[in-house]
Amino acid sequence: MASDSAIGVFDSGVGGLTVAGAITRALPNERLVYLGDTARLPYGSKSPDVVRRYAERCADFLLTQDIKMMVIACNTATAHALHYLQMKLEIPVVGVISAGARRALVVSRSKRIGVIGTAGTIASGAYKKAIHALEPQAEVFEQACPMFVPLAEEGMTSHEATKLIARDYLKTMREHEIDALVLGCTHYPLLREVIQEAVGSQVALCDSAEACTDDVKAVLTDTRKLAEKKSGPHRFYLTDVQASFRTLAARFFGADTDPERVDL
Amino acid sequence: MASDSAIGVFDSGVGGLTVAGAITRALPNERLVYLGDTARLPYGSKSPDVVRRYAERCADFLLTQDIKMMVIACNTATAHALHYLQMKLEIPVVGVISAGARRALVVSRSKRIGVIGTAGTIASGAYKKAIHALEPQAEVFEQACPMFVPLAEEGMTSHEATKLIARDYLKTMREHEIDALVLGCTHYPLLREVIQEAVGSQVALCDSAEACTDDVKAVLTDTRKLAEKKSGPHRFYLTDVQASFRTLAARFFGADTDPERVDL
Repeated sequence: MASDSAIGVFDSGVGGLTVAGAITRALPNERLVYLGDTARLPYGSKSPDVVRRYAERCADFLLTQDIKMMVIACNTATAHALHYLQMKLEIPVVGVISAGARRALVVSRSKRIGVIGTAGTIASGAYKKAIHALEPQAEVFEQACPMFVPLAEEGMTSHEATKLIARDYLKTMREHEIDALVLGCTHYPLLREVIQEAVGSQVALCDSAEACTDDVKAVLTDTRKLAEKKSGPHRFYLTDVQASFRTLAARFFGADTDPERVDL
Repeated sequence: MASDSAIGVFDSGVGGLTVAGAITRALPNERLVYLGDTARLPYGSKSPDVVRRYAERCADFLLTQDIKMMVIACNTATAHALHYLQMKLEIPVVGVISAGARRALVVSRSKRIGVIGTAGTIASGAYKKAIHALEPQAEVFEQACPMFVPLAEEGMTSHEATKLIARDYLKTMREHEIDALVLGCTHYPLLREVIQEAVGSQVALCDSAEACTDDVKAVLTDTRKLAEKKSGPHRFYLTDVQASFRTLAARFFGADTDPERVDL
């Protein structure tokens, strides 16, 4: 059995394209329908119930698009809405947090693990819970890095100001002597070099976007819904389309996109 | 004749509280109903029709609150929605842009004027048009400063990184030898010192929040609707209420607020 239905992916904006890109590289036959809620971004600074409401609207839209599973390609939305959508929807829903937590535990020897993310993700404690569910002895150190999203979106990935801010945010991670750091926001891989420099080369950086593809593959394998052959072009929908999107999208997705606007 | 109806004020979030604060200082008898659209902020990076749609919803809510006039306390929303709301509503609507333009022309001798704002405000060219409508000979130099809003909201008003970013953004203003700079975003007065340092002490900074109060006063005087006596407590509504709001609000408004949440 197989399915040429799409994988629905949503995020507050472009960050989730890092997840979408990772999925297409790992599962090249699969067709994606991507929704970026650019009219309401960012999610990271908003409260749990507002994010849950937005996530629900995104999910409702994707459900109209012949999808076989859904990926919440946003850490904040995963933190606030994953369990809710898993209970509500009949198709499988995968987030980015448990994958990131698992990956951190694989690469960490000392089990002293840092987690960075948006204010919303960190306040939720979702990563700490996910790591402790797998390894109760692990020590988890969390830090919100609210400036990283705008810095990544502005392309200031090697600006001296970005280095200063990274050093400020990550100073305590050095003091805690972590050996693994979860990049708990889909924008952060764009700042990988600056982050690595700030925490030191001995720390392994864990990108939940990459890790998440394992979950997607497992779900499609378990439900016997992997696409057997290349199943058509990806579709990209945005709630607000701006000229800057395609440049930004190319940076996050690694390929060109042709977004359509949808009002939710 | 007088009116103890309120002045309705809206913004994408907390920035407009600088305008609200200025109005209460200039017109202490007036009662304000403030709406911050914190569930959808920021407006500055979104497209004109999305911002217009959000502004319309804000206006619809304020119209239910017994108001005698409306102030768009947000440069981006003024740029994209002022004319639309002026045409649509029966009460007077005032924005922040024409006031800021006028103030710049008053303080500038060389008529070489800089304008900084969000990506949306700068792309609209609204300040350039407003300045040229009053003084066609003026030379106007515009620069979007998208990092200034997050830096101000994070309270990084004297961080070394903020100085570096300000120097980058404002380098061309030095080259253009402006003598007045419009702070065309309600967040920017919080970064006044850093901005002044970056452009040089010979440049006069024009805060449209302060200037806007003249328009409010003129409208209420012309329509004979100034409050004659202190007309009750201000009300603050937000579309998303977070713990951080009150701290941030105190910084912008100069007094405590007690926000209520409203779903729009």
